[in-house]
Amino acid sequence: MVKRKAPDIAVGRLPLYLRVLNQLLEEGRTTTNSQEMGTRLGLSPAQIRKDLSYFGGFGRFGAGYDVAYLCEQLRRILNLERTWPVALVGAGHLGHALANYGRFSEGGFEIVAVFDDDPSKIGSPLGRHQVLDAAQLERVIQEQGIVIAILAVPLQAAQAVADRLVAAGIKAILNYAPVRLKVPNDVKVQEIDPVARLQHMAYYLEADDAAMDDGEA
Amino acid sequence: MVKRKAPDIAVGRLPLYLRVLNQLLEEGRTTTNSQEMGTRLGLSPAQIRKDLSYFGGFGRFGAGYDVAYLCEQLRRILNLERTWPVALVGAGHLGHALANYGRFSEGGFEIVAVFDDDPSKIGSPLGRHQVLDAAQLERVIQEQGIVIAILAVPLQAAQAVADRLVAAGIKAILNYAPVRLKVPNDVKVQEIDPVARLQHMAYYLEADDAAMDDGEA
Repeated sequence: MVKRKAPDIAVGRLPLYLRVLNQLLEEGRTTTNSQEMGTRLGLSPAQIRKDLSYFGGFGRFGAGYDVAYLCEQLRRILNLERTWPVALVGAGHLGHALANYGRFSEGGFEIVAVFDDDPSKIGSPLGRHQVLDAAQLERVIQEQGIVIAILAVPLQAAQAVADRLVAAGIKAILNYAPVRLKVPNDVKVQEIDPVARLQHMAYYLEADDAAMDDGEA
Repeated sequence: MVKRKAPDIAVGRLPLYLRVLNQLLEEGRTTTNSQEMGTRLGLSPAQIRKDLSYFGGFGRFGAGYDVAYLCEQLRRILNLERTWPVALVGAGHLGHALANYGRFSEGGFEIVAVFDDDPSKIGSPLGRHQVLDAAQLERVIQEQGIVIAILAVPLQAAQAVADRLVAAGIKAILNYAPVRLKVPNDVKVQEIDPVARLQHMAYYLEADDAAMDDGEA
């Protein structure tokens, strides 16, 4: 399979390309090129062409890309021609925001079940859902053939819940708990940690001060 | 300055090291090493030692690291010895979750003002805050010397709000809108896009099916 050759970092940029193409479509555009996509994404045109080249030839040299065609191809490559049912675990503030997040469905995903183990939350409405008892996690995941889960539980509970998700058949976890989950090799995990992102940027805030000190020396 | 030499990708991993060290501290541990940290993070010990080497010598060869000392040094390097005041723009479901997110303060950040331009939200309580009129954005940011903002507004409003934030003096933006913001070179942006992360993982879900097909051939 040609697609096996693509490095993970290139795969990770495909959703960004798809995002830009969708925006171009909404603007009524029919063609684009790597230069324009690069400008919109802050990436070099060469990077974009190289990433896309792992997956096939999507444009004629000099003629650019057909927006609708490339969009369709990227959705195919990323397996987004179907809608993936998703289990959300955790019905706190974050779970609430995620259950009400409008972009999942247009992106190819639909939260079909929300779980929590807090008796005060079980049975209460959340977005278009009713919070289910976490004790039913395995049954619902297996019955509905769900392979993607979003983990929005406290740090202390995260690994134990992840273990249960994996045992129930989950193959991809979007993890909001600030811990690197231990999972088998065939399970993918992506982590979202806003604190780590802020800390990353804080490093440079001081670097600016240092730069000014240098200037005075 | 020694710290200038560090590549951004190494800087971006420091918060993960800090996270692990904090967890070790909570477990009452006093020493660790790159092997143990690597196991907890799914990174190679060599990677961790190399990343840390950009910033100084934090352990004696063979003796490992003093957890409290390395923790303190990483906080110093990342400029987290102070608490950074943060402006949050957008008081929808996501803004609500962010305003109630407990980990910001322990990470070195405090949301000090929440803004929205929706008259039905302005003045209403959100976490420990009262939602301010977005018209006051510039005044509050300047008066309070805020340089970090979290952007949790709809896609269509994101660039215009970012322009206002930058003009008001913001130097770091955590962007939840699915668009690559255009900002001056001295402003840092980190993007959080859960849909892109799910799409990245969906690529591999199909790869598994393909692998099974291959097996049958």
